[in-house]
Amino acid sequence: MWLERPIRGVMLDITGVLYESGAGAITGSVHAVDRLRASGLRVVLVSNESSQPTSTLVKNLNTLGYDWVTTDDVITPIPAVMAVLRQHALNPHLLVHPSVEHEFDDVVRAEEAKTCVVMGDADANFSFENMNSAFNCLMDMKQPKLYCLGKGRYYRHNGKLQLDVGCFNAALEFATGVTADIVGKPAKLYFQKALDHLNLPAEQVLMVGDDLFGDVVGATEVGCRAVLVRTGKFQNSWGQHAAPSFVADNLAHAVDLLLEAMPHWTTA
Amino acid sequence: MWLERPIRGVMLDITGVLYESGAGAITGSVHAVDRLRASGLRVVLVSNESSQPTSTLVKNLNTLGYDWVTTDDVITPIPAVMAVLRQHALNPHLLVHPSVEHEFDDVVRAEEAKTCVVMGDADANFSFENMNSAFNCLMDMKQPKLYCLGKGRYYRHNGKLQLDVGCFNAALEFATGVTADIVGKPAKLYFQKALDHLNLPAEQVLMVGDDLFGDVVGATEVGCRAVLVRTGKFQNSWGQHAAPSFVADNLAHAVDLLLEAMPHWTTA
Repeated sequence: MWLERPIRGVMLDITGVLYESGAGAITGSVHAVDRLRASGLRVVLVSNESSQPTSTLVKNLNTLGYDWVTTDDVITPIPAVMAVLRQHALNPHLLVHPSVEHEFDDVVRAEEAKTCVVMGDADANFSFENMNSAFNCLMDMKQPKLYCLGKGRYYRHNGKLQLDVGCFNAALEFATGVTADIVGKPAKLYFQKALDHLNLPAEQVLMVGDDLFGDVVGATEVGCRAVLVRTGKFQNSWGQHAAPSFVADNLAHAVDLLLEAMPHWTTA
Repeated sequence: MWLERPIRGVMLDITGVLYESGAGAITGSVHAVDRLRASGLRVVLVSNESSQPTSTLVKNLNTLGYDWVTTDDVITPIPAVMAVLRQHALNPHLLVHPSVEHEFDDVVRAEEAKTCVVMGDADANFSFENMNSAFNCLMDMKQPKLYCLGKGRYYRHNGKLQLDVGCFNAALEFATGVTADIVGKPAKLYFQKALDHLNLPAEQVLMVGDDLFGDVVGATEVGCRAVLVRTGKFQNSWGQHAAPSFVADNLAHAVDLLLEAMPHWTTA
Protein backbone atom coordinates (compact mmCIF):
# COMPACT_ATOMS: atom_id res chain seq x y z
CA MET A 1 0.00 0.00 0.00
CA TRP A 2 1.47 3.32 -1.09
CA LEU A 3 0.14 5.19 1.98
CA GLU A 4 1.31 2.84 4.72
CA ARG A 5 4.59 4.60 5.40
CA PRO A 6 4.63 8.30 6.36
CA ILE A 7 4.98 11.02 3.76
CA ARG A 8 6.46 14.34 4.91
CA GLY A 9 6.75 16.22 1.63
CA VAL A 10 5.19 16.39 -1.81
CA MET A 11 6.70 17.33 -5.17
CA LEU A 12 4.07 18.61 -7.60
CA ASP A 13 4.38 18.84 -11.33
CA ILE A 14 2.79 22.07 -12.57
CA THR A 15 1.47 21.77 -16.14
CA GLY A 16 -1.22 19.10 -16.36
CA VAL A 17 -1.49 18.85 -12.54
CA LEU A 18 -2.09 22.41 -11.29
CA TYR A 19 -3.44 23.73 -14.59
CA GLU A 20 -4.00 22.67 -18.18
CA SER A 21 -1.70 24.26 -20.75
CA GLY A 22 -3.58 26.93 -22.67
CA ALA A 23 -6.55 26.63 -20.26
CA GLY A 24 -7.30 27.23 -16.57
CA ALA A 25 -6.63 25.62 -13.18
CA ILE A 26 -7.66 21.98 -12.95
CA THR A 27 -10.86 21.55 -10.92
CA GLY A 28 -10.08 21.09 -7.24
CA SER A 29 -6.32 21.56 -7.55
CA VAL A 30 -6.10 25.03 -5.98
CA HIS A 31 -7.99 23.88 -2.89
CA ALA A 32 -6.06 20.59 -2.78
CA VAL A 33 -2.72 22.39 -2.60
CA ASP A 34 -4.06 24.69 0.12
CA ARG A 35 -5.08 21.64 2.18
CA LEU A 36 -1.70 19.99 1.61
CA ARG A 37 0.10 23.08 2.87
CA ALA A 38 -2.27 23.50 5.83
CA SER A 39 -1.60 19.90 6.88
CA GLY A 40 2.02 20.70 7.55
CA LEU A 41 3.39 18.67 4.62
CA ARG A 42 6.23 20.38 2.79
CA VAL A 43 5.45 21.24 -0.83
CA VAL A 44 7.71 22.06 -3.79
CA LEU A 45 6.69 22.57 -7.42
CA VAL A 46 8.95 20.68 -9.83
CA SER A 47 8.44 21.61 -13.46
CA ASN A 48 10.13 21.12 -16.83
CA GLU A 49 8.51 24.35 -18.07
CA SER A 50 11.07 26.13 -20.24
CA SER A 51 8.84 28.02 -22.68
CA GLN A 52 8.31 30.97 -20.33
CA PRO A 53 10.48 32.72 -17.72
CA THR A 54 10.03 31.34 -14.18
CA SER A 55 8.80 34.77 -13.05
CA THR A 56 6.02 34.62 -15.68
CA LEU A 57 5.15 31.06 -14.66
CA VAL A 58 4.83 32.20 -11.02
CA LYS A 59 2.67 35.19 -11.99
CA ASN A 60 0.39 32.90 -13.99
CA LEU A 61 0.08 30.51 -11.05
CA ASN A 62 -0.79 33.45 -8.77
CA THR A 63 -3.50 34.56 -11.19
CA LEU A 64 -4.98 31.06 -11.30
CA GLY A 65 -5.43 31.01 -7.50
CA TYR A 66 -2.06 29.63 -6.37
CA ASP A 67 -1.46 33.00 -4.69
CA TRP A 68 1.18 31.77 -2.22
CA VAL A 69 3.70 30.71 -4.90
CA THR A 70 6.99 32.61 -5.24
CA THR A 71 10.00 31.76 -7.40
CA ASP A 72 11.49 30.10 -4.30
CA ASP A 73 8.76 27.46 -4.34
CA VAL A 74 9.45 26.38 -7.91
CA ILE A 75 12.20 24.30 -9.45
CA THR A 76 12.52 24.95 -13.20
CA PRO A 77 15.19 24.04 -15.74
CA ILE A 78 16.38 27.49 -16.84
CA PRO A 79 17.86 28.61 -13.48
CA ALA A 80 19.31 25.09 -13.12
CA VAL A 81 21.07 25.16 -16.50
CA MET A 82 22.21 28.74 -15.91
CA ALA A 83 24.09 27.51 -12.82
CA VAL A 84 25.81 24.86 -14.95
CA LEU A 85 26.69 27.35 -17.71
CA ARG A 86 28.17 29.77 -15.18
CA GLN A 87 30.10 27.04 -13.38
CA HIS A 88 31.80 25.89 -16.60
CA ALA A 89 31.94 29.36 -18.23
CA LEU A 90 30.09 27.99 -21.25
CA ASN A 91 28.90 30.18 -24.12
CA PRO A 92 25.62 28.64 -25.32
CA HIS A 93 24.00 28.48 -28.73
CA LEU A 94 20.30 28.68 -27.86
CA LEU A 95 17.43 26.72 -29.35
CA VAL A 96 14.72 27.94 -26.99
CA HIS A 97 11.37 29.71 -26.96
CA PRO A 98 11.69 33.40 -27.96
CA SER A 99 10.18 34.47 -24.62
CA VAL A 100 13.06 33.00 -22.60
CA GLU A 101 16.03 34.05 -24.73
CA HIS A 102 16.70 37.06 -22.50
CA GLU A 103 17.02 34.78 -19.47
CA PHE A 104 20.42 33.75 -20.89
CA ASP A 105 21.76 37.28 -21.48
CA ASP A 106 24.24 37.01 -18.59
CA VAL A 107 26.13 34.07 -20.09
CA VAL A 108 25.87 34.55 -23.87
CA ARG A 109 29.04 36.01 -25.43
CA ALA A 110 27.97 36.79 -28.99
CA GLU A 111 31.49 37.54 -30.25
CA GLU A 112 33.03 34.23 -29.10
CA ALA A 113 32.75 30.68 -30.43
CA LYS A 114 29.88 28.66 -28.99
CA THR A 115 30.89 25.92 -26.57
CA CYS A 116 27.54 24.20 -26.05
CA VAL A 117 23.96 24.02 -27.29
CA VAL A 118 21.06 24.59 -24.89
CA MET A 119 17.72 23.29 -26.09
CA GLY A 120 14.45 24.09 -24.32
CA ASP A 121 10.81 23.72 -25.28
CA ALA A 122 11.06 25.99 -28.31
CA ASP A 123 7.57 25.31 -29.72
CA ALA A 124 7.29 26.72 -33.27
CA ASN A 125 10.95 27.71 -33.01
CA PHE A 126 11.70 24.04 -33.72
CA SER A 127 11.94 24.86 -37.42
CA PHE A 128 14.09 22.96 -39.91
CA GLU A 129 16.36 26.01 -40.11
CA ASN A 130 16.84 26.28 -36.34
CA MET A 131 17.37 22.55 -35.95
CA ASN A 132 20.06 22.71 -38.64
CA SER A 133 21.77 25.66 -36.93
CA ALA A 134 21.96 23.79 -33.63
CA PHE A 135 23.16 20.65 -35.44
CA ASN A 136 25.92 22.45 -37.35
CA CYS A 137 26.95 24.23 -34.17
CA LEU A 138 27.45 20.84 -32.46
CA MET A 139 29.27 19.40 -35.48
CA ASP A 140 31.69 22.33 -35.43
CA MET A 141 32.62 21.82 -31.75
CA LYS A 142 35.72 19.81 -30.86
CA GLN A 143 33.96 18.56 -27.74
CA PRO A 144 30.26 18.85 -28.54
CA LYS A 145 28.08 19.50 -25.50
CA LEU A 146 24.29 19.46 -25.57
CA TYR A 147 22.05 20.45 -22.65
CA CYS A 148 18.39 19.57 -22.97
CA LEU A 149 15.82 21.12 -20.60
CA GLY A 150 13.80 18.02 -19.85
CA LYS A 151 13.15 14.89 -21.85
CA GLY A 152 9.39 15.06 -22.39
CA ARG A 153 7.79 13.19 -25.27
CA TYR A 154 4.72 15.43 -25.57
CA TYR A 155 2.29 17.56 -23.61
CA ARG A 156 -1.29 18.67 -23.97
CA HIS A 157 -1.72 22.27 -25.14
CA ASN A 158 -5.11 23.81 -25.92
CA GLY A 159 -6.54 20.32 -25.71
CA LYS A 160 -4.21 18.87 -28.34
CA LEU A 161 -1.05 16.79 -27.97
CA GLN A 162 2.11 18.61 -29.02
CA LEU A 163 5.71 17.39 -29.36
CA ASP A 164 7.94 18.24 -26.41
CA VAL A 165 11.66 19.03 -26.31
CA GLY A 166 12.70 15.39 -25.76
CA CYS A 167 11.72 14.56 -29.36
CA PHE A 168 13.91 17.24 -30.89
CA ASN A 169 16.67 16.16 -28.55
CA ALA A 170 16.31 12.61 -29.92
CA ALA A 171 16.71 14.06 -33.44
CA LEU A 172 19.92 15.93 -32.57
CA GLU A 173 21.34 12.98 -30.62
CA PHE A 174 20.70 10.70 -33.62
CA ALA A 175 22.30 13.20 -36.02
CA THR A 176 25.42 13.90 -33.98
CA GLY A 177 25.98 10.82 -31.84
CA VAL A 178 26.19 13.16 -28.83
CA THR A 179 24.24 12.21 -25.69
CA ALA A 180 22.58 15.24 -24.12
CA ASP A 181 22.86 16.16 -20.47
CA ILE A 182 19.26 16.42 -19.29
CA VAL A 183 18.58 19.38 -17.02
CA GLY A 184 15.06 18.64 -15.79
CA LYS A 185 12.94 15.60 -14.99
CA PRO A 186 13.68 12.67 -15.14
CA ALA A 187 17.36 13.44 -14.38
CA LYS A 188 18.33 12.21 -10.92
CA LEU A 189 20.25 15.39 -10.12
CA TYR A 190 17.13 17.41 -10.81
CA PHE A 191 14.97 15.36 -8.45
CA GLN A 192 17.82 15.57 -5.91
CA LYS A 193 17.57 19.36 -6.14
CA ALA A 194 13.90 19.09 -5.20
CA LEU A 195 14.65 16.71 -2.31
CA ASP A 196 17.31 19.12 -1.03
CA HIS A 197 14.73 21.90 -1.20
CA LEU A 198 12.31 19.81 0.91
CA ASN A 199 15.21 18.70 3.15
CA LEU A 200 13.74 15.19 3.25
CA PRO A 201 14.93 11.72 2.25
CA ALA A 202 13.35 10.31 -0.93
CA GLU A 203 11.43 7.59 0.94
CA GLN A 204 9.38 10.29 2.75
CA VAL A 205 8.46 12.14 -0.44
CA LEU A 206 5.61 11.73 -2.92
CA MET A 207 5.73 12.99 -6.51
CA VAL A 208 2.45 13.81 -8.27
CA GLY A 209 2.60 14.19 -12.04
CA ASP A 210 0.86 13.62 -15.36
CA ASP A 211 3.91 12.23 -17.19
CA LEU A 212 4.60 8.52 -16.78
CA PHE A 213 8.23 8.83 -17.84
CA GLY A 214 9.36 12.22 -16.58
CA ASP A 215 7.43 12.36 -13.32
CA VAL A 216 6.57 8.84 -12.24
CA VAL A 217 9.41 6.64 -13.50
CA GLY A 218 11.93 9.40 -12.75
CA ALA A 219 10.76 9.91 -9.16
CA THR A 220 10.52 6.21 -8.35
CA GLU A 221 14.07 5.74 -9.64
CA VAL A 222 15.37 8.12 -6.96
CA GLY A 223 13.35 6.29 -4.29
CA CYS A 224 10.21 8.44 -4.02
CA ARG A 225 6.66 7.22 -4.27
CA ALA A 226 4.75 8.63 -7.24
CA VAL A 227 1.13 9.19 -8.19
CA LEU A 228 0.09 9.48 -11.81
CA VAL A 229 -2.94 11.71 -12.40
CA ARG A 230 -5.50 11.29 -15.18
CA THR A 231 -5.25 14.97 -16.18
CA GLY A 232 -2.88 16.82 -18.52
CA LYS A 233 -1.14 14.53 -21.01
CA PHE A 234 -2.30 11.31 -19.30
CA GLN A 235 -2.81 8.37 -21.68
CA ASN A 236 -5.07 5.44 -20.79
CA SER A 237 -2.38 2.91 -21.72
CA TRP A 238 -0.13 4.36 -18.98
CA GLY A 239 -2.57 3.27 -16.28
CA GLN A 240 -1.44 -0.33 -16.84
CA HIS A 241 2.23 0.50 -16.21
CA ALA A 242 3.90 -0.88 -13.08
CA ALA A 243 5.66 2.34 -12.05
CA PRO A 244 3.00 4.52 -10.37
CA SER A 245 2.27 3.86 -6.69
CA PHE A 246 -1.29 4.88 -7.54
CA VAL A 247 -3.29 6.32 -10.44
CA ALA A 248 -5.53 9.17 -9.24
CA ASP A 249 -8.31 10.95 -11.10
CA ASN A 250 -6.60 14.26 -10.43
CA LEU A 251 -4.54 16.07 -7.79
CA ALA A 252 -7.56 16.59 -5.47
CA HIS A 253 -8.20 12.84 -5.47
CA ALA A 254 -4.58 12.08 -4.55
CA VAL A 255 -4.59 14.70 -1.79
CA ASP A 256 -7.85 13.37 -0.33
CA LEU A 257 -6.32 9.92 0.07
CA LEU A 258 -3.08 11.31 1.40
CA LEU A 259 -4.73 13.45 4.07
CA GLU A 260 -7.02 10.58 5.09
CA ALA A 261 -3.97 8.39 5.67
CA MET A 262 -1.99 10.92 7.72
CA PRO A 263 -3.63 10.31 11.14
CA HIS A 264 -2.80 6.59 10.90
CA TRP A 265 0.94 7.07 10.55
CA THR A 266 2.94 6.31 13.69
CA THR A 267 5.26 9.21 14.54
CA ALA A 268 8.94 8.44 14.54
CA MET B 1 42.51 -7.51 -49.25
CA TRP B 2 39.16 -6.24 -50.50
CA LEU B 3 39.99 -6.86 -54.18
CA GLU B 4 41.23 -10.43 -53.94
CA ARG B 5 37.91 -12.08 -54.65
CA PRO B 6 36.04 -11.30 -57.90
CA ILE B 7 33.45 -8.54 -58.07
CA ARG B 8 30.73 -8.86 -60.75
CA GLY B 9 28.50 -5.96 -59.89
CA VAL B 10 28.58 -2.53 -58.28
CA MET B 11 25.91 -0.64 -56.34
CA LEU B 12 26.50 3.11 -56.47
CA ASP B 13 25.03 5.67 -54.12
CA ILE B 14 24.04 8.78 -56.10
CA THR B 15 24.19 11.95 -53.98
CA GLY B 16 27.72 12.57 -52.72
CA VAL B 17 29.17 9.91 -55.06
CA LEU B 18 27.97 10.81 -58.58
CA TYR B 19 27.27 14.48 -57.80
CA GLU B 20 27.29 16.91 -54.89
CA SER B 21 23.84 18.05 -53.71
CA GLY B 22 23.21 21.60 -54.91
CA ALA B 23 26.35 21.46 -57.11
CA GLY B 24 27.65 19.52 -60.13
CA ALA B 25 29.03 16.08 -60.94
CA ILE B 26 31.99 15.02 -58.80
CA THR B 27 35.26 15.24 -60.73
CA GLY B 28 36.00 12.00 -62.54
CA SER B 29 32.76 10.26 -61.58
CA VAL B 30 31.06 10.43 -65.02
CA HIS B 31 34.07 8.85 -66.71
CA ALA B 32 34.52 6.34 -63.88
CA VAL B 33 30.97 5.01 -64.32
CA ASP B 34 31.46 4.79 -68.08
CA ARG B 35 34.59 2.71 -67.53
CA LEU B 36 32.78 0.47 -65.02
CA ARG B 37 30.01 -0.22 -67.51
CA ALA B 38 32.43 -0.78 -70.39
CA SER B 39 34.31 -3.37 -68.32
CA GLY B 40 31.25 -5.60 -68.24
CA LEU B 41 30.53 -5.12 -64.52
CA ARG B 42 26.84 -4.77 -63.73
CA VAL B 43 25.89 -1.39 -62.25
CA VAL B 44 22.85 -0.27 -60.31
CA LEU B 45 22.26 3.09 -58.64
CA VAL B 46 20.93 2.74 -55.08
CA SER B 47 19.72 5.99 -53.56
CA ASN B 48 17.73 7.20 -50.56
CA GLU B 49 16.75 10.32 -52.53
CA SER B 50 13.14 11.12 -51.67
CA SER B 51 13.04 14.90 -52.08
CA GLN B 52 12.45 14.73 -55.85
CA PRO B 53 10.56 12.34 -58.15
CA THR B 54 12.72 9.54 -59.56
CA SER B 55 12.00 10.84 -63.06
CA THR B 56 13.46 14.23 -62.08
CA LEU B 57 16.47 12.57 -60.48
CA VAL B 58 17.12 10.64 -63.70
CA LYS B 59 16.77 13.79 -65.83
CA ASN B 60 19.25 15.59 -63.58
CA LEU B 61 21.72 12.70 -63.85
CA ASN B 62 21.35 12.77 -67.66
CA THR B 63 22.09 16.51 -67.69
CA LEU B 64 25.20 16.01 -65.55
CA GLY B 65 26.69 13.55 -68.09
CA TYR B 66 25.21 10.26 -66.84
CA ASP B 67 23.32 10.10 -70.14
CA TRP B 68 22.72 6.33 -70.09
CA VAL B 69 20.62 6.35 -66.89
CA THR B 70 16.92 5.47 -67.08
CA THR B 71 14.46 4.92 -64.21
CA ASP B 72 15.18 1.18 -64.60
CA ASP B 73 18.77 1.72 -63.48
CA VAL B 74 17.83 3.40 -60.23
CA ILE B 75 16.46 2.07 -56.96
CA THR B 76 14.77 4.82 -54.93
CA PRO B 77 12.50 4.71 -51.87
CA ILE B 78 9.28 6.21 -53.29
CA PRO B 79 8.48 3.44 -55.80
CA ALA B 80 9.50 0.93 -53.10
CA VAL B 81 7.14 2.34 -50.49
CA MET B 82 4.37 2.72 -53.08
CA ALA B 83 4.56 -1.04 -53.65
CA VAL B 84 4.13 -1.61 -49.89
CA LEU B 85 1.22 0.86 -49.64
CA ARG B 86 -0.55 -0.80 -52.55
CA GLN B 87 0.06 -4.29 -51.22
CA HIS B 88 -1.53 -3.47 -47.84
CA ALA B 89 -4.10 -0.97 -49.24
CA LEU B 90 -2.78 1.68 -46.84
CA ASN B 91 -3.97 5.29 -46.89
CA PRO B 92 -0.91 7.38 -45.98
CA HIS B 93 -0.57 10.67 -44.14
CA LEU B 94 2.40 12.26 -45.92
CA LEU B 95 5.29 14.17 -44.39
CA VAL B 96 7.35 14.56 -47.56
CA HIS B 97 8.90 17.18 -49.81
CA PRO B 98 6.24 19.20 -51.71
CA SER B 99 7.79 18.15 -55.04
CA VAL B 100 6.98 14.46 -54.47
CA GLU B 101 3.49 14.70 -52.98
CA HIS B 102 1.91 13.95 -56.36
CA GLU B 103 3.83 10.68 -56.60
CA PHE B 104 1.43 9.33 -53.97
CA ASP B 105 -1.80 10.41 -55.71
CA ASP B 106 -2.70 6.82 -56.65
CA VAL B 107 -2.89 5.61 -53.04
CA VAL B 108 -4.07 8.64 -51.05
CA ARG B 109 -7.77 8.51 -50.15
CA ALA B 110 -8.45 11.97 -48.74
CA GLU B 111 -11.93 11.15 -47.45
CA GLU B 112 -10.87 8.10 -45.38
CA ALA B 113 -9.02 7.76 -42.08
CA LYS B 114 -5.25 7.54 -42.41
CA THR B 115 -3.74 4.14 -41.72
CA CYS B 116 -0.03 4.99 -41.80
CA VAL B 117 2.44 7.86 -41.92
CA VAL B 118 5.03 8.05 -44.69
CA MET B 119 7.99 10.31 -43.96
CA GLY B 120 10.55 11.25 -46.62
CA ASP B 121 13.26 13.87 -46.79
CA ALA B 122 10.89 16.81 -46.39
CA ASP B 123 13.55 19.51 -46.02
CA ALA B 124 11.92 22.78 -44.84
CA ASN B 125 8.61 20.90 -44.63
CA PHE B 126 9.96 19.47 -41.34
CA SER B 127 8.23 22.30 -39.49
CA PHE B 128 6.94 22.06 -35.92
CA GLU B 129 3.41 22.14 -37.30
CA ASN B 130 3.96 19.30 -39.78
CA MET B 131 5.82 17.20 -37.22
CA ASN B 132 2.88 17.62 -34.83
CA SER B 133 0.38 16.64 -37.52
CA ALA B 134 2.27 13.41 -38.27
CA PHE B 135 2.63 12.75 -34.53
CA ASN B 136 -1.08 13.23 -33.79
CA CYS B 137 -1.97 11.11 -36.80
CA LEU B 138 0.09 8.23 -35.34
CA MET B 139 -1.35 8.74 -31.84
CA ASP B 140 -4.88 8.51 -33.26
CA MET B 141 -4.22 5.15 -34.97
CA LYS B 142 -5.15 1.92 -33.20
CA GLN B 143 -2.19 0.20 -34.84
CA PRO B 144 0.22 3.02 -35.62
CA LYS B 145 2.41 2.37 -38.66
CA LEU B 146 5.30 4.59 -39.68
CA TYR B 147 7.30 4.21 -42.90
CA CYS B 148 10.52 6.18 -43.14
CA LEU B 149 12.27 6.61 -46.50
CA GLY B 150 15.82 5.98 -45.35
CA LYS B 151 17.53 6.49 -42.03
CA GLY B 152 20.17 9.10 -42.91
CA ARG B 153 21.63 11.31 -40.20
CA TYR B 154 22.59 14.19 -42.49
CA TYR B 155 23.81 15.06 -45.97
CA ARG B 156 25.81 17.83 -47.56
CA HIS B 157 23.74 20.36 -49.49
CA ASN B 158 25.22 23.49 -51.06
CA GLY B 159 28.40 22.75 -49.13
CA LYS B 160 26.68 22.69 -45.75
CA LEU B 161 25.54 19.77 -43.60
CA GLN B 162 21.78 19.43 -43.30
CA LEU B 163 19.63 17.11 -41.17
CA ASP B 164 18.27 14.08 -43.01
CA VAL B 165 15.00 12.20 -42.56
CA GLY B 166 16.44 9.75 -40.03
CA CYS B 167 16.64 12.50 -37.41
CA PHE B 168 12.98 13.43 -37.69
CA ASN B 169 12.16 9.74 -37.63
CA ALA B 170 14.08 9.47 -34.34
CA ALA B 171 11.94 12.33 -32.99
CA LEU B 172 8.65 10.64 -33.94
CA GLU B 173 9.82 7.25 -32.71
CA PHE B 174 10.74 8.80 -29.35
CA ALA B 175 7.39 10.61 -29.12
CA THR B 176 5.19 7.66 -30.01
CA GLY B 177 7.16 4.55 -29.03
CA VAL B 178 6.53 3.24 -32.56
CA THR B 179 9.47 1.76 -34.46
CA ALA B 180 9.46 2.82 -38.11
CA ASP B 181 9.77 0.45 -41.03
CA ILE B 182 12.72 1.78 -43.00
CA VAL B 183 12.22 1.78 -46.77
CA GLY B 184 15.68 2.64 -48.03
CA LYS B 185 19.27 2.04 -47.00
CA PRO B 186 20.35 0.52 -44.59
CA ALA B 187 17.32 -1.82 -44.57
CA LYS B 188 18.28 -5.34 -45.65
CA LEU B 189 15.21 -5.72 -47.88
CA TYR B 190 16.25 -2.60 -49.78
CA PHE B 191 19.76 -3.90 -50.45
CA GLN B 192 18.21 -7.23 -51.40
CA LYS B 193 16.14 -5.39 -54.03
CA ALA B 194 19.38 -4.06 -55.49
CA LEU B 195 21.02 -7.50 -55.44
CA ASP B 196 17.97 -8.96 -57.21
CA HIS B 197 18.31 -6.23 -59.82
CA LEU B 198 21.96 -7.17 -60.37
CA ASN B 199 21.05 -10.88 -60.20
CA LEU B 200 24.21 -11.54 -58.19
CA PRO B 201 24.99 -12.92 -54.72
CA ALA B 202 26.07 -10.32 -52.14
CA GLU B 203 29.66 -11.65 -51.98
CA GLN B 204 30.21 -10.66 -55.64
CA VAL B 205 28.92 -7.12 -55.17
CA LEU B 206 30.64 -3.89 -54.13
CA MET B 207 28.76 -0.89 -52.67
CA VAL B 208 30.29 2.56 -53.09
CA GLY B 209 28.86 5.31 -50.89
CA ASP B 210 29.56 8.43 -48.86
CA ASP B 211 27.49 7.40 -45.81
CA LEU B 212 29.22 5.20 -43.25
CA PHE B 213 25.95 4.00 -41.72
CA GLY B 214 23.49 3.85 -44.62
CA ASP B 215 25.84 2.69 -47.37
CA VAL B 216 28.84 0.99 -45.81
CA VAL B 217 27.58 -0.64 -42.62
CA GLY B 218 24.28 -1.50 -44.32
CA ALA B 219 25.91 -3.16 -47.34
CA THR B 220 28.47 -5.12 -45.30
CA GLU B 221 25.64 -6.42 -43.11
CA VAL B 222 24.05 -8.11 -46.14
CA GLY B 223 27.44 -9.59 -47.14
CA CYS B 224 28.67 -7.09 -49.74
CA ARG B 225 32.01 -5.39 -49.73
CA ALA B 226 31.80 -1.60 -49.40
CA VAL B 227 33.99 1.39 -50.23
CA LEU B 228 33.56 4.67 -48.40
CA VAL B 229 34.43 7.75 -50.49
CA ARG B 230 35.81 11.01 -49.14
CA THR B 231 33.23 13.08 -51.05
CA GLY B 232 29.66 14.13 -50.16
CA LYS B 233 28.94 13.98 -46.46
CA PHE B 234 32.17 12.10 -45.61
CA GLN B 235 33.54 12.89 -42.15
CA ASN B 236 37.22 12.37 -41.28
CA SER B 237 36.34 10.46 -38.12
CA TRP B 238 34.58 7.79 -40.24
CA GLY B 239 37.88 6.84 -41.92
CA GLN B 240 38.92 5.13 -38.68
CA HIS B 241 35.81 2.92 -38.60
CA ALA B 242 36.22 -0.82 -39.13
CA ALA B 243 33.32 -1.28 -41.56
CA PRO B 244 34.60 -0.03 -44.97
CA SER B 245 36.61 -2.51 -47.08
CA PHE B 246 38.50 0.56 -48.28
CA VAL B 247 38.36 4.35 -48.02
CA ALA B 248 38.80 5.96 -51.47
CA ASP B 249 39.34 9.61 -52.33
CA ASN B 250 36.32 9.48 -54.63
CA LEU B 251 34.49 7.17 -57.03
CA ALA B 252 37.17 7.48 -59.74
CA HIS B 253 39.82 6.32 -57.26
CA ALA B 254 37.75 3.27 -56.27
CA VAL B 255 37.05 2.38 -59.92
CA ASP B 256 40.75 2.68 -60.83
CA LEU B 257 41.66 0.11 -58.18
CA LEU B 258 38.75 -2.14 -59.10
CA LEU B 259 39.57 -2.21 -62.82
CA GLU B 260 43.27 -2.79 -62.09
CA ALA B 261 42.37 -5.84 -60.02
CA MET B 262 39.99 -7.39 -62.56
CA PRO B 263 42.57 -9.14 -64.79
CA HIS B 264 44.00 -10.94 -61.73
CA TRP B 265 40.77 -12.67 -60.78
CA THR B 266 40.55 -16.33 -61.68
CA THR B 267 37.36 -17.04 -63.61
CA ALA B 268 34.96 -19.46 -62.03
